[in-house]
Amino acid sequence: MSSKPDIGFCGLGAMGFGMATHLVKSGHSVTGFDVWAPTLEKFKAAGGIPSSSLSESAKNKDWYIVMVATAQQAQSALFEAEDGGIVKALPKGATLLLCSTVPSSYAQSVEKELKEKGRDDIFFIDSPVSGGTFRAADGTLSIMAGGPEAALEKGKWLLDELSAPTKLFIVEGGIGAGSNMKMVHQVLAAIQILAVSEAFGFAARLGLNGKDVREKVLSSEAWSWMFENRSVRTLEEDYFPGASAVGIIMKDTGIITSIARLVNFPASLCTIAEQVYFAAADRGWTPNDDSGIVRLWTPDPVSNVQSTSSDEDKKAKLKLVIGLLTGIHLVSAAESITFAKHVGLPLEQLYTLAVDAAGGSTMFKTYGEKIIPVLEGTGDGDERLESHLKNLKEAVDEAQRIKCPVYLGGGALTLLLASGENTRLVGLLKMYSVK
Amino acid sequence: MSSKPDIGFCGLGAMGFGMATHLVKSGHSVTGFDVWAPTLEKFKAAGGIPSSSLSESAKNKDWYIVMVATAQQAQSALFEAEDGGIVKALPKGATLLLCSTVPSSYAQSVEKELKEKGRDDIFFIDSPVSGGTFRAADGTLSIMAGGPEAALEKGKWLLDELSAPTKLFIVEGGIGAGSNMKMVHQVLAAIQILAVSEAFGFAARLGLNGKDVREKVLSSEAWSWMFENRSVRTLEEDYFPGASAVGIIMKDTGIITSIARLVNFPASLCTIAEQVYFAAADRGWTPNDDSGIVRLWTPDPVSNVQSTSSDEDKKAKLKLVIGLLTGIHLVSAAESITFAKHVGLPLEQLYTLAVDAAGGSTMFKTYGEKIIPVLEGTGDGDERLESHLKNLKEAVDEAQRIKCPVYLGGGALTLLLASGENTRLVGLLKMYSVK
Repeated sequence: MSSKPDIGFCGLGAMGFGMATHLVKSGHSVTGFDVWAPTLEKFKAAGGIPSSSLSESAKNKDWYIVMVATAQQAQSALFEAEDGGIVKALPKGATLLLCSTVPSSYAQSVEKELKEKGRDDIFFIDSPVSGGTFRAADGTLSIMAGGPEAALEKGKWLLDELSAPTKLFIVEGGIGAGSNMKMVHQVLAAIQILAVSEAFGFAARLGLNGKDVREKVLSSEAWSWMFENRSVRTLEEDYFPGASAVGIIMKDTGIITSIARLVNFPASLCTIAEQVYFAAADRGWTPNDDSGIVRLWTPDPVSNVQSTSSDEDKKAKLKLVIGLLTGIHLVSAAESITFAKHVGLPLEQLYTLAVDAAGGSTMFKTYGEKIIPVLEGTGDGDERLESHLKNLKEAVDEAQRIKCPVYLGGGALTLLLASGENTRLVGLLKMYSVK
Repeated sequence: MSSKPDIGFCGLGAMGFGMATHLVKSGHSVTGFDVWAPTLEKFKAAGGIPSSSLSESAKNKDWYIVMVATAQQAQSALFEAEDGGIVKALPKGATLLLCSTVPSSYAQSVEKELKEKGRDDIFFIDSPVSGGTFRAADGTLSIMAGGPEAALEKGKWLLDELSAPTKLFIVEGGIGAGSNMKMVHQVLAAIQILAVSEAFGFAARLGLNGKDVREKVLSSEAWSWMFENRSVRTLEEDYFPGASAVGIIMKDTGIITSIARLVNFPASLCTIAEQVYFAAADRGWTPNDDSGIVRLWTPDPVSNVQSTSSDEDKKAKLKLVIGLLTGIHLVSAAESITFAKHVGLPLEQLYTLAVDAAGGSTMFKTYGEKIIPVLEGTGDGDERLESHLKNLKEAVDEAQRIKCPVYLGGGALTLLLASGENTRLVGLLKMYSVK
C-alpha cells in the first residue's frame, strides 16, 4: 500500500490521463473516473484504479482532481450526477482541484454552490493547466492556481507534483484568478493554433513543401510553441484523433470571446479565429486534431507538395510565410497582454508563465517585454513596427493575388494599419486599450 | 439610319449588355464587342451590331464605352489586343468612357499610356457605375465620373443617357476620382453583399425560414439595397449564374483592400469579407451569383426551413438577425465614409450617391448624416451606439451558442467594443481615423 495520499480523479482524456498516470507513477493510489470504458481499461493497465461511479471515485478521498473538458461537464460531475456526484461523496475537509479550462465566472459559481450546499469545508482550488500531453504525463505542467490562502497552502504539494519546479503560478485574486490567467494565456493559443494551419495552407498554395516550411519557421522569429508542437502532426496528417481536438480550442476560444463581450474587451483576432473554428466544426472536424484545420486550405497533405520553384523563389516565398506568422504573433501578444490588463491580472506573471508554456512564441518573448511597461505606464511604446507591417503586407498582397484566405493575417494587418502613423507599438496597444 | 451618334462598346456582360442595349433602344447604332459568341448573337437579336474584332468595334467611333470586368481585361482590350486594340483604332478626338470598376491607379495609368502613345487627343473619362442590371438596362444607373473638364463636358450627354437624372456624379480630382468614389461605395457593397448570406445562414441555423427573414428585414432598419436585391435570388436559389458573380464582388473587394494597404487605411470588415469570398471561390463558386454564398452556412434552401418555433420565439430570433445586420451596416457606413475621407473624396457627394445606389442601407442613411460632420470637424460624434452594440452582442452570443460563423458580425462587434466607454460614434470613427 502506498504511503502517499490516495487521490480521486475525474476526466481521463488526453491531458487527464497523463496527469493521473503521472500521479500513479509517483506512488499514489489514484481512483480514476471516466465515462469512456476503454479509457478505464487503459488506466487500469497503467496501474490506476478504474471507477465507473463518480461517488465511488470520491469516497474517502482527501484529494480530488477534476480534469474534464468543459464547465458543463464539471458541473454535472461535481453536483448533478445521478449518484450524487463528487462533492456529495467527498469527506470533510477534502481538497478539490478544478484543472479544467473554464470561465472564471464558472469557477466562482462552484465556490458559491459549495457554500450554499454547506460544503465550504472543502478546500477548493481553481487551477487550470497548460503544457500539452507530454508535460501532463511528465508532471511538468504549467499551472495557474487561484483560491483562498488556506486551500492553496493545503493543496500546494499536489500542484507541485503536477507542475515543473518553476511553473506553478499562484495568481492573486482568489477563485477565478487562475481561470482568468489561463484565459488570457489561451488568447495566444487560440490565435497561434489557427496560425499554424493558415501558414501551412498559404505555404502549400504558394507551392512550398510543409517540411521546408517547418524547418524555416522553427529557426526563425516566427517560432511558436504551437507551431513546433502542431506541425509534427500536420506533416504526418495525424488528425484522427491526434492529440488536441478542434473542439477543445474552440471551447477555450468561446470562453475568451464570451468573457470579452461581458467586460467590453475587443478580442479581435480571437473573434476571427472562432469563426474559422466554427467553419472547421461545420466540416465535422470537431473531434479531429486542430492541426488538421489546414484542410480548410488544401485537401492534399502539405508534406506532399512538390516545389517547382528555384531556390531564390523558394526563399522569397518562405519569407512571406514568416512575415505572415510574425505579424499574427505580434498582434496576438498585444491581444493577450492587453486583455490581462483589462481584467486586472499581473502582467509580469503572465509573461513569465506564457513565454515558457503552450502560448509561447519568439514574438511574444520579444514584444511582451516591450508591451508590459507601456501598459504599466513606465514605457512610451515608441518601438516602430514598420518592418513587421511591411512583411505582413507583402504576405497578404500575395495571398490576395493567389486568392488564398488569410483570416488572421488580414485581421492582424488591419490592426497594424489602424495603429496610425509610423506604426508604433503604443498605437497598436491603443486598439485594445478601451477603458 | 440613326440620327444619333454611333457608339462602340466593349464588354457585354450582365451590366454591359444592359447598358449597350439601352443605347440601342435610345436610337444609337451600337457596335458591341465581346469574347463570348452567344452574347454577340443575343446582342444582334436586341438590335445591336455584333463585332468579334476590337479594332472593328472602335473604327470610326467618336464614342466608345469599355465595360469589361477587370483592369487586366481593360488593359488588354485598350492597348494589347492582337488586332491593335481599341485605342489604336479610335478616330482622332474620340471620347472614351471606362465604366469598369478598377483601381484609381489603373485609370491613371490609362491616362498616362494614352499620352505616351501620342493619343492624348482622346477625351478619356473614368466613370464607373452602380445600380445593378435593371438600372443598367433602364439607363438609370448611378455614375461616378472623373476626368479633365473638357472630356467631362464632351462626354456628358452620353453619361446622361446611361444615368438617372439625379444620379450622375461628377467627382472632382480628375482621372481616378471616379474610381476612388466607386471604391468607397463598394466598401458598402463588399460588406453588405456578404452580410446577406451571413444573415440568411445564421437565420437558417436558428430555424427561421428565409421568406420570414426577408419580410422582416425589408420592413426594419436592417434594410439594405443589397439585401432587397440579393434576397430574391437567395430564396429562389437563382445562383447559376444569377446576376452578379462572386468573382465580381471579390475583384471589387480586392481593389478596396489593396488600395487600403497602399494608403495605410484599416479596411477591417472588407478584409474579413475578402477572406470569406476566397473561401467561396475555393468551393468553385466564383462564377455563381454572390447571393449563393449562403451555402457556406447551409447546403439546404433557406426557403425550405420548417420553423418549429412559437411565434414569440420566432420573433426573438428574427430580432437577433436584425441586430446582426444593423450592427454590420453601422460599421460598414463608418468604414466607407472614413475611407472616403482618407483618400480625400467629398463626403457629402458619397452620401448623396450611395444612399440611393447599390450601397444604400437604412443604417447608412441614418448614421452617414451623423458621421460626416464628425469627420469634417463640425460635429462631436456624441451619439451613443449602445443599443446597436447590445443587439449585436446578443446575436453573436447566440451564434456562438449554436456554433454558427458570423465573420462580419464578429468583426463589427470587436470594432464597437474597441470604441471605448459608452460606445460613442466618435469612438468607432477613431478606429478608422489613423492619420
